[in-house]
Amino acid sequence: MSKSSLRVSKRLEAHIAYLPGEQPVETSSVIKLNTNENPYPPSPAVQTSVGQEVALLNLYPNPKSSDLRKILAELHSLDPNQIILGNGSDDLLNLCVRCYSDDDLKVAMMYPSYSLYEVLSGVQGSKMIRVPFLDDEFSLNLDAIASSEANLFFLTSPHAPSGRVYALEDLRKVAQAVSGLLVIDEAYVDFAPESALPLVHEFEHILITRTLSKSYSLAGMRVGYAMGHPKVIKQMDQVREVYNLDRLAQVGAKAAILDQEYFRSCLAKVIEQRNWLANAFNELGWSFVSSGTNFIFVKPLSPDGCASPEIAVSLFEHLAADKILVRYFSKHPQTNCFLRISIGKPVEMAMLMKSIKAWTQKA
Amino acid sequence: MSKSSLRVSKRLEAHIAYLPGEQPVETSSVIKLNTNENPYPPSPAVQTSVGQEVALLNLYPNPKSSDLRKILAELHSLDPNQIILGNGSDDLLNLCVRCYSDDDLKVAMMYPSYSLYEVLSGVQGSKMIRVPFLDDEFSLNLDAIASSEANLFFLTSPHAPSGRVYALEDLRKVAQAVSGLLVIDEAYVDFAPESALPLVHEFEHILITRTLSKSYSLAGMRVGYAMGHPKVIKQMDQVREVYNLDRLAQVGAKAAILDQEYFRSCLAKVIEQRNWLANAFNELGWSFVSSGTNFIFVKPLSPDGCASPEIAVSLFEHLAADKILVRYFSKHPQTNCFLRISIGKPVEMAMLMKSIKAWTQKA
Repeated sequence: MSKSSLRVSKRLEAHIAYLPGEQPVETSSVIKLNTNENPYPPSPAVQTSVGQEVALLNLYPNPKSSDLRKILAELHSLDPNQIILGNGSDDLLNLCVRCYSDDDLKVAMMYPSYSLYEVLSGVQGSKMIRVPFLDDEFSLNLDAIASSEANLFFLTSPHAPSGRVYALEDLRKVAQAVSGLLVIDEAYVDFAPESALPLVHEFEHILITRTLSKSYSLAGMRVGYAMGHPKVIKQMDQVREVYNLDRLAQVGAKAAILDQEYFRSCLAKVIEQRNWLANAFNELGWSFVSSGTNFIFVKPLSPDGCASPEIAVSLFEHLAADKILVRYFSKHPQTNCFLRISIGKPVEMAMLMKSIKAWTQKA
Repeated sequence: MSKSSLRVSKRLEAHIAYLPGEQPVETSSVIKLNTNENPYPPSPAVQTSVGQEVALLNLYPNPKSSDLRKILAELHSLDPNQIILGNGSDDLLNLCVRCYSDDDLKVAMMYPSYSLYEVLSGVQGSKMIRVPFLDDEFSLNLDAIASSEANLFFLTSPHAPSGRVYALEDLRKVAQAVSGLLVIDEAYVDFAPESALPLVHEFEHILITRTLSKSYSLAGMRVGYAMGHPKVIKQMDQVREVYNLDRLAQVGAKAAILDQEYFRSCLAKVIEQRNWLANAFNELGWSFVSSGTNFIFVKPLSPDGCASPEIAVSLFEHLAADKILVRYFSKHPQTNCFLRISIGKPVEMAMLMKSIKAWTQKA
């Protein structure tokens, strides 16, 4: 076979691909608490609308996802020109990186948080600044945020993987400290008490990203959106793939958003189970971050009351042997004694606790 | 509202967004022959498989589209590690640009062809070299191709917007002339007599891209794939969005590909209508490029036998008034006397010709 002198872009020299949580091919035999999926299926209205759309798949989708923009604008009391849709919110995070960073324009992120920010800035060849937290409760350090001087700043709120909630007043201070675009990644905000959305009316340089993956049970469909100033939205619209949202995703997302009753009932069930799990951890005497998300970030303790990376890994492996998948983040001292456990159905939470108790007695 | 000092990446200073053909919101009242969609709906098997998958949408998709890779590998007698899936082939073209071009590594394309190549290289900040054709029949100029010295070369085959077919032997010579990655964009190849696929076994630096948008009637679903050397596929896999293909697209594409009987019957109908339209243009004495695609690129003549941009625009506007949408490319002397007309159903082709004949008598 003929060889080539093909060269790879220098921007990719240090690139390491994003590594998602394990997605087993056969999901029926495992309890999957590792990627923060909603344990409930999407609204029955999704089935109907998707089914009706299949016959039209020979035609291209609406390139602007116009219907979805209108519906989301109504939902959030915004103008449609303040909203952009993405093939998952990852698509929109990538657009931010491509529009607002390059060799000269720096990116910053709270570290540790969603590792994809760093992957995306790596592909763009942009310099990423990791801004540390103030303490082990993942409190925000305003001085460190301001001194990053980034043109693009990623803040996950509620925080992942800890689940920590930030008050609106704190986020307002962050907006004042950041001079570039402040992206507030609200992937989990529907499980939290409040959103940073009011700040969109106060600051030109705020962009709030959301996903339908978690709270709307549509991880398998890839729909995210962002809300911000029309100038920012217009810039991102110029760069996004023209048909980034397919027909089925457009009508499926519309149906899911319009069924707010179903949406709220699933949220309530997840939050109820989150409270149940939090109680169970309290009973064990294990510490965890108070969660505004659909997961709990917990520090497992050995029977003699110790926490360590080895202990976290021991529980991770014990659960895996029981076919219970959770997530472990080994790379940072603020995460490596913890496990991140997604909230599942009551029966799954009960089996989780049964397995955890067996581990505590075994150890 | 608080202003910001947000700056846009310098790579986007000269960026102009891709402009797709018009996608009317209400399609039932127009004859849509402007974006090369298949006039037939997808295989009935797509409806079934998509319907069954909706209940699983709360779970993330398979990040590798493993099933699709296997099925496509079997279809094309390749190994699964020679195949990558994309959210439309546009996603894959973008990955090529991101992996194999930057400020130093140049991109080249045959010009005119698919204008998206230039849009994508603009976002990357890469230098695009436009390689002209040898003649008005869109013949390939090997010397010009070789002297581009591009690290990434885009060739649309069959050519768009002309529909011209290139012989495998000619494409082999192009592969010998290009030292970087030669991307052969076979969006329309299912309507043509042969594919460049055999070259994948001869050259490490060939990548063939395909889409299910046209021949499989799935423009609304966004599924494309590329076939090449495992080294190239692996590199692109590292950079692609990890869940770039949603669950419905994965199962829908699988169902469509497995129903080869339906696929072939739609192809046969489109080709029959293409032949019918070609005959009709011959009868009018209008010249057109012999097409290996699902469209015909035709040069309209005024009653006194003249062709000009004004004459092409006159017919374009006449057809639009009759609610028949076709595509006009004003920007290049090799395209601005032509209209590109997608192949529709027999009744649509008949109405098209009726409108064209009325125009010839009016003029």
